[in-house]
Amino acid sequence: MTQTYNVAVVGATGLVGEAILELLEERDFPVGDLFPLASAESAGKPVYFKGRSFKVGVLADFDFAQVQIALFSAGSDVAAEYAPRAVEAGCVVIDNSACFRNEPEVPLVVPEVNPERVHEHCGIIANPNCSTIQMLVALAPIYRSVGIRRINVSTYQAVSGAGRKAVEELARQTALLLNARDIDNQLFAKQMAFNVLPQIDSMDDSGYSGEELKMVWETRKILEDDEIGVTPTCVRVPVFFGHSEAVHIETRDQISALEVRELLEQSPGIEVIDEPEGGGWATAVTEAAGKDAVFVSRIREDITCDNGINLWIVSDNVRKGAALNAVQIAELLVRNGV
Amino acid sequence: MTQTYNVAVVGATGLVGEAILELLEERDFPVGDLFPLASAESAGKPVYFKGRSFKVGVLADFDFAQVQIALFSAGSDVAAEYAPRAVEAGCVVIDNSACFRNEPEVPLVVPEVNPERVHEHCGIIANPNCSTIQMLVALAPIYRSVGIRRINVSTYQAVSGAGRKAVEELARQTALLLNARDIDNQLFAKQMAFNVLPQIDSMDDSGYSGEELKMVWETRKILEDDEIGVTPTCVRVPVFFGHSEAVHIETRDQISALEVRELLEQSPGIEVIDEPEGGGWATAVTEAAGKDAVFVSRIREDITCDNGINLWIVSDNVRKGAALNAVQIAELLVRNGV
Repeated sequence: MTQTYNVAVVGATGLVGEAILELLEERDFPVGDLFPLASAESAGKPVYFKGRSFKVGVLADFDFAQVQIALFSAGSDVAAEYAPRAVEAGCVVIDNSACFRNEPEVPLVVPEVNPERVHEHCGIIANPNCSTIQMLVALAPIYRSVGIRRINVSTYQAVSGAGRKAVEELARQTALLLNARDIDNQLFAKQMAFNVLPQIDSMDDSGYSGEELKMVWETRKILEDDEIGVTPTCVRVPVFFGHSEAVHIETRDQISALEVRELLEQSPGIEVIDEPEGGGWATAVTEAAGKDAVFVSRIREDITCDNGINLWIVSDNVRKGAALNAVQIAELLVRNGV
Repeated sequence: MTQTYNVAVVGATGLVGEAILELLEERDFPVGDLFPLASAESAGKPVYFKGRSFKVGVLADFDFAQVQIALFSAGSDVAAEYAPRAVEAGCVVIDNSACFRNEPEVPLVVPEVNPERVHEHCGIIANPNCSTIQMLVALAPIYRSVGIRRINVSTYQAVSGAGRKAVEELARQTALLLNARDIDNQLFAKQMAFNVLPQIDSMDDSGYSGEELKMVWETRKILEDDEIGVTPTCVRVPVFFGHSEAVHIETRDQISALEVRELLEQSPGIEVIDEPEGGGWATAVTEAAGKDAVFVSRIREDITCDNGINLWIVSDNVRKGAALNAVQIAELLVRNGV
């Protein structure tokens, strides 16, 4: 008989919460009792798991002593209030928000990169930001092999990274524009349909956005390297699912594009698609959306720098960028007993 | 009495050709007789200039001795065949295609950057690639002030850069997808609607695309600096008009973000929009489309490098990236007599 674990999914009606339920089923996670939870507003709605319908419970009323694992994807405010309560009740929290990521005692884990950190938790394990996760799955093997001094990354991020309302805003704006009607911006600062917006999260005094600074310090924390330089430009594009990244690195020791390719082909969680002809590269829609892997394409030497490598990195931001990474952390946890 | 010039517009029914006619009118270019020309397929169609309708003539039948200036925007094959004929007939050709850009005796001109080269022509003046033009309008003042060693650029390029059929393909695919219908790809290698494609032009053995290599050698030719390193990643995004670029430079001497801002605010052809709050940055749709300027936003120091500056550069690819730049070259020409 397999040991099972009672699991709470906090934010069960959101895009990431839904994907967590799908992935727990798809990957046959040993779920005992399941408790989908949300705010009072969403409570009572049905969600589905292994052919059964579950009524979403009210987070504020839930007794976390009933579960061993709680997967949170409900934003920083909710995590700040409820994750400590869940921990106090004896449960391990895997949190998708940025709330605890920077706390020294909270492991920030990408299972392909630093799985060993999972077991050092004091009740909370943080899931990194979507853009960081896919970048580091692809870069960690190179980092381990030849070292990386600097990362310069420009992102092409899907609207689903901003949640269900952002997906609806892109769809609504697109439909209105195709019908020559006026649009309004509710969630985004400017028109999102047929446009690209160079700001995600609020801007810092340094001129970097919150999303960009997350990529900087999360990379340092996960790789345990305070020296590594990261300069990101984070941009929202009118894509529903799947983040793309143009990544430029400077390695410590020289490595050829061919060696990088061979290295990544043998590395976990990565699929290399890199042919010069016939669209031999990955895109958000045609390769990444709905898939688990981080796709790497356009691996080439930087013609301006001896130790430079350029790559194109694409992954499903809701799956590997959030839900899948969280479920993989849960899998690591149960492998040695929670 | 103002001297006038007879002008031929080759490719008059294309997106760029149409914009050239608009701009000749808008900027009150001293047009004497106007000859809109195209392939036999498009001949006979009407185009409009200063309230008059003109029938598009057949390029193959045209006698270029009738005009002093010919503005070509009809692709490399057409330029290769007809531009030399026009020159032989005594006319000056301003060509938008890549056909002659790399020829040593052909000036490659961005009027804000190297206007003095216009008069060194042997009959043909080349218009640079759209992505190069907007980048160099913004970078040339910095280059002149402190020098630039390396440019790392990721582009977010509108489909109109690939012509009218590409605009139609994005519109068609978007409408079909919103109606849950199947799409096909005619011009693009993969789905363009709600997706980003990391290849523009064919791929080289080095792993760089044709569009990327154009940005490399056009930059060197225009700045007259064979040492400057340029490493571009050129990406097509589902935007109709307006290219955006995330540009990262390493200067020779140090310069602060504030100094860059002050420098660019005083430089020709540039509008700086750079505020931390309330969407204080330019986008393709809301600022650039239909405008003449190159917009620069998000000017900040690169936190990974002492001499690094990051910028966000946006412009209308059909106007400043093609038609406007060509008309500005024509204006420079007539200033001193053709």
